[in-house]
Amino acid sequence: MGMIGGGKDAFIGAVHRLAMNMDGQCELVAGTLSVNPEVAIASGKELFLDDSRIYTDYKVMLQKEAAMPEDKRLDFISIVTPNFVHFDPAMMALENGFNVIIEKPVTFTLEQAKQLKEKLIETGLHLMLCHTYTGYPMVKQAKQLLKNGTLGKIRKVYVEYPQGWLSTFLEGTGQAQASWRTDPKKSGKAGSMGDIGTHAFNLAEYVTGLQVTQICAGLNIVVEGRLLDDDGAAFLKFDNGATGVLMATQIAAGEENAVKIRVYGEKGGLEWKQEDANTLLVKWLDKPTEIYRTGAAYNSSFAMHNTRIPTGHPEGYLEAFANLYRNFTLTLKAKMNGTAPQEEWTDYPGIEEGIRGMAFIENVVASSERDIKWMDFTV
Amino acid sequence: MGMIGGGKDAFIGAVHRLAMNMDGQCELVAGTLSVNPEVAIASGKELFLDDSRIYTDYKVMLQKEAAMPEDKRLDFISIVTPNFVHFDPAMMALENGFNVIIEKPVTFTLEQAKQLKEKLIETGLHLMLCHTYTGYPMVKQAKQLLKNGTLGKIRKVYVEYPQGWLSTFLEGTGQAQASWRTDPKKSGKAGSMGDIGTHAFNLAEYVTGLQVTQICAGLNIVVEGRLLDDDGAAFLKFDNGATGVLMATQIAAGEENAVKIRVYGEKGGLEWKQEDANTLLVKWLDKPTEIYRTGAAYNSSFAMHNTRIPTGHPEGYLEAFANLYRNFTLTLKAKMNGTAPQEEWTDYPGIEEGIRGMAFIENVVASSERDIKWMDFTV
Amino acid sequence: MGMIGGGKDAFIGAVHRLAMNMDGQCELVAGTLSVNPEVAIASGKELFLDDSRIYTDYKVMLQKEAAMPEDKRLDFISIVTPNFVHFDPAMMALENGFNVIIEKPVTFTLEQAKQLKEKLIETGLHLMLCHTYTGYPMVKQAKQLLKNGTLGKIRKVYVEYPQGWLSTFLEGTGQAQASWRTDPKKSGKAGSMGDIGTHAFNLAEYVTGLQVTQICAGLNIVVEGRLLDDDGAAFLKFDNGATGVLMATQIAAGEENAVKIRVYGEKGGLEWKQEDANTLLVKWLDKPTEIYRTGAAYNSSFAMHNTRIPTGHPEGYLEAFANLYRNFTLTLKAKMNGTAPQEEWTDYPGIEEGIRGMAFIENVVASSERDIKWMDFTV
Amino acid sequence: MGMIGGGKDAFIGAVHRLAMNMDGQCELVAGTLSVNPEVAIASGKELFLDDSRIYTDYKVMLQKEAAMPEDKRLDFISIVTPNFVHFDPAMMALENGFNVIIEKPVTFTLEQAKQLKEKLIETGLHLMLCHTYTGYPMVKQAKQLLKNGTLGKIRKVYVEYPQGWLSTFLEGTGQAQASWRTDPKKSGKAGSMGDIGTHAFNLAEYVTGLQVTQICAGLNIVVEGRLLDDDGAAFLKFDNGATGVLMATQIAAGEENAVKIRVYGEKGGLEWKQEDANTLLVKWLDKPTEIYRTGAAYNSSFAMHNTRIPTGHPEGYLEAFANLYRNFTLTLKAKMNGTAPQEEWTDYPGIEEGIRGMAFIENVVASSERDIKWMDFTV
Repeated sequence: MGMIGGGKDAFIGAVHRLAMNMDGQCELVAGTLSVNPEVAIASGKELFLDDSRIYTDYKVMLQKEAAMPEDKRLDFISIVTPNFVHFDPAMMALENGFNVIIEKPVTFTLEQAKQLKEKLIETGLHLMLCHTYTGYPMVKQAKQLLKNGTLGKIRKVYVEYPQGWLSTFLEGTGQAQASWRTDPKKSGKAGSMGDIGTHAFNLAEYVTGLQVTQICAGLNIVVEGRLLDDDGAAFLKFDNGATGVLMATQIAAGEENAVKIRVYGEKGGLEWKQEDANTLLVKWLDKPTEIYRTGAAYNSSFAMHNTRIPTGHPEGYLEAFANLYRNFTLTLKAKMNGTAPQEEWTDYPGIEEGIRGMAFIENVVASSERDIKWMDFTV
Repeated sequence: MGMIGGGKDAFIGAVHRLAMNMDGQCELVAGTLSVNPEVAIASGKELFLDDSRIYTDYKVMLQKEAAMPEDKRLDFISIVTPNFVHFDPAMMALENGFNVIIEKPVTFTLEQAKQLKEKLIETGLHLMLCHTYTGYPMVKQAKQLLKNGTLGKIRKVYVEYPQGWLSTFLEGTGQAQASWRTDPKKSGKAGSMGDIGTHAFNLAEYVTGLQVTQICAGLNIVVEGRLLDDDGAAFLKFDNGATGVLMATQIAAGEENAVKIRVYGEKGGLEWKQEDANTLLVKWLDKPTEIYRTGAAYNSSFAMHNTRIPTGHPEGYLEAFANLYRNFTLTLKAKMNGTAPQEEWTDYPGIEEGIRGMAFIENVVASSERDIKWMDFTV
Repeated sequence: MGMIGGGKDAFIGAVHRLAMNMDGQCELVAGTLSVNPEVAIASGKELFLDDSRIYTDYKVMLQKEAAMPEDKRLDFISIVTPNFVHFDPAMMALENGFNVIIEKPVTFTLEQAKQLKEKLIETGLHLMLCHTYTGYPMVKQAKQLLKNGTLGKIRKVYVEYPQGWLSTFLEGTGQAQASWRTDPKKSGKAGSMGDIGTHAFNLAEYVTGLQVTQICAGLNIVVEGRLLDDDGAAFLKFDNGATGVLMATQIAAGEENAVKIRVYGEKGGLEWKQEDANTLLVKWLDKPTEIYRTGAAYNSSFAMHNTRIPTGHPEGYLEAFANLYRNFTLTLKAKMNGTAPQEEWTDYPGIEEGIRGMAFIENVVASSERDIKWMDFTV
Repeated sequence: MGMIGGGKDAFIGAVHRLAMNMDGQCELVAGTLSVNPEVAIASGKELFLDDSRIYTDYKVMLQKEAAMPEDKRLDFISIVTPNFVHFDPAMMALENGFNVIIEKPVTFTLEQAKQLKEKLIETGLHLMLCHTYTGYPMVKQAKQLLKNGTLGKIRKVYVEYPQGWLSTFLEGTGQAQASWRTDPKKSGKAGSMGDIGTHAFNLAEYVTGLQVTQICAGLNIVVEGRLLDDDGAAFLKFDNGATGVLMATQIAAGEENAVKIRVYGEKGGLEWKQEDANTLLVKWLDKPTEIYRTGAAYNSSFAMHNTRIPTGHPEGYLEAFANLYRNFTLTLKAKMNGTAPQEEWTDYPGIEEGIRGMAFIENVVASSERDIKWMDFTV
């Protein structure tokens, strides 16, 4: 596969490579790893890419690689650039026949996401969106328990993502991550809500299988001088009548990446948090809370398929990420082989989740700016 | 002291007696323990009250006891009846010269709470309101850390109180607690928000030392047939510019009494939850999270004063409750002795907290019914 | 009831009073609260004892109180002195017709414990030994689960009690608790093993219902200058063939009172630790671990009887202690009333546990001094 | 690199490949993946090995690969076979000029381990032993804190490894892992002590930097019919005078891979457990316990070097394993480049740890069989 972005000076590109390498099922062979040509070349060399496939312009790369003979052709392109450089390379990749893996949020605007969807339908190609948290085995297990009705009709959802790393005016120091993520020209309409609020939103919809229909949001810029929201919360209404609260903040000093979801149904509830990622608490009205654990034999096929090692040996974020890559490549291979993929394989986030994530950004920002409490969630 | 309510068929009355007994500093000697005369008498006998001081009408009790000679006179009256029977006995107790301990919410309406305040000013008597969670040593410690500016200016508050016991239509079974707490004629304007939302609200204001100035709320009746909210959430704005989210629900199936508060300042955050009540997590931007523990010598005088046993031996809800009683009686004794009470003693909730709690109920209900997002929090 | 020891300068006496007061079922009316007459008198006054029942010599107290008319007569005497002043007052109390509550270890030597047992048989009086940890509801629940065979035949027991408070040569500073507890003339043959090892030993035998038959111990004096062991461990063999490991230390710097027990049977295991006292983990070979919680309706009658408040409101050490007092007084009252006590009431530690505890001290010290690995546990 | 063992029917081979792949720094190109030729070939194909480098006899592989031109030559061989097939291939690999990665315990007998050491000295080649737990960042951090004397002189070590998977006679069902691990002809002198006791022992010596000098052990066969110990414990004495307790069991029904270590010094203690692998508790005599977390900037260079992603995104067992591989390959590359490796790179377990692990097996079994309590730990 090939990569756009993710050079030596980036963060998430390296994570993609770790995740992709893990199962030994795909190999990075081409890349435009930075907008800075020097960095692009140096990064490519460091990653042992063949000189002929180290590019300094992704357009050139996509054209040249599209012309490769079939046995050398890239199966997919991973786009790991800042938000404002998602749409163009993705569209061009699709137009050149490449499947696409893309970081969230999928595009800069909702409109672009819809265009990508049309192109995907038109080409029959596949796109995977990196909502990594959906790759955790215990998140899969949570989804299956709810899907099977184990806890009854869903009534309440609490989802939260507190971080603390933007508690100071970090962008003022030139720190790369902080700089683009707080810059409306590079990040989009939303700051914290685009960066981590979308994860929380996606997690809520993924785990419950429900869709948000109404929203009431309040966003804040807490750190002086910042240009985008660094904190916020939203009330949610879901299509089955359930309600929810979503909290995302980047100014919770001392918090790491404490994403957590709780869902309550008529008969019980469940709780998962990334900091104890291999545990799923299942709570009951009238019997002891149960501790589900990654790798244990009682788990669903969805959880087991996404588990690599015996229970008690913790699997982490990279394994969750690798699960996304693995499921995407398994699906692509099935397609190449003309066989039907297992439903465990196709259970990865795609353009629909991308569109809903962009809609979340649009809606949460719009709601925050309005005086009226509830707003329909429009896509 | 004397008690109104709290007979054999009640819940919180027994808790009051456990709390009051603990330190051996006060004794129950008179009571109107139930509206049901038979229960009142049987309960009094069970508690070894002298027959002459077992009453079946609290008005009679207050009059007779007021006429007692000074050495036999009750120092205070504990009112542990359902909400709609708070105001009248409290007012009459004050008029008869008794200090008062009262369950939350302090009255049925905000107006009544204000009248109580006037009467307290007029008589110079004292009132304690049972916001038990403020009696935990680690809650005291949290308050002191914030007061001392250890974490910098406060920016964000998350407070939550999930319960699951009203997940079914329990009031339909005749269960006593569920019946009155979900009945607007006995409980007041709010259900979950009055019962536990007020605790969450009080905890937030107590720990931060801030006051809510604006609110945006959404309340729900989740269980069919219920007459009052059993679930809700509110966005909060505080007088220093900080924001917050308050969540209270009684339909989180599988949850017990999971009250929890998190506060974030410029330099760090703190987290306390009742389920691990002797632990206070103090989080920092740039150094390891610290685990403060009840009883450890590094705690403030406020925490230490409210601790009875060495660290590692857990203190619980009854000790927190007993701390309220102890601080109230220490304050009363100081007054009797004509000495100034320590500031650790007077740190118990009173009529001001009662008024703000009633205002919370009024505001949260009003906000929930409005289409406009933000509403000024009026008292 | 009356008390020997426990004046203003002591630790455990105050705990006894808190525990005894809680349920309002017994009252301290007489006491010899210190060997120091001034402290004894001042302490008595502070506790509102009638002047006539404040004593400075326990022998005088026992004689005078024995002569009281029946309606004023003490039901029992609590002995909360250092170990070397357990036997004499206990024996004299029994000889004067008083039931006895006594701190652990029950006596200074095993031989004395046996003499107490004979006297108890002779008089028909009752003795309760303060192994407080057996008063926790979840410890009761653990015992019942094992007794009912839920986890199959017991195979393995790990019990540990790490403390850190004797990490320095505290007795050199004159600190009262450290001074007598590390003094062989006051504490007995063992230091840490007598002070907390006996608790661990008792907890293991209580929860499993098994008895230790062989032991292999290693005790250490870690802090220079100390006269008794401050650290140690023992391998255990039980009468059903199970084995165990017991660890007790007072030099685990940073630990509080981290007593913990784990028991494994053929089908599963359980884990309880004081620091999370209201939780009992029940683990299974082939299904999720279950979290039992104090107060939940699924618990046994033994756990429920020893619970005061609804689940989620933590109960702590004082409640556990109060459970011992309550069960003892319920048993005494049943006897006075000529009725059979419930089995939940008589489930408190007594002289048998006292004898086994003293035997533990003798055996663990003897084993530690021997070169041979295994030694029969003799009583 | 090449691999011996680890075919489709094995467990740890797949883990090795996941770990090795992760950083994209080494590639599996040759293998004798099973003693069963069919499995060996099928497994090789599945892993995309070139047909010419799929072998069915490791001796043939080592000879043929040794003859490869330098640019195609394997840098090292990973040996992931059962214990009784460690020594021969390792020795032959060294004799053919290959560096070696080997599963623990390093050999079948202590004598063999010593021979490997001699061969390593003779050839100047490198060997890495897979004590995976030493690859966790927080284990590295623990070691550094102790090395720097942060907690003062070490006094006490508790190390434990409870598992439950051998609670039944699993080898009777033909389960592959259970079968060889409980078979003295394949596993060696010890069962649980060889399989997981060695991990606990290594962890204790690695983290403390101390060496065991005396031991007192008790091993048990709990499950009827089993041929090797499935449970045991040992008292330890260390070369600085500290003592310890080591517990390892495979019959703790309901436990997963709950390896845990606690170390106490004069000033404080630390605690790490695999189930919460990214947390290191650092406890103090007189200040709050601190929670060190993987990835936080305050960690030592050793912890940071072994961390891949930002704090709060959990890293797991595979990352710990990959750290071993990465450090080994970084060391090998430094050697090839003629540069000095960083001390963070060479901090992986090697033949010395292998020898001490084999000595542990010999000593723990010998001690268990003796009547005398303490035995010198001989190598």
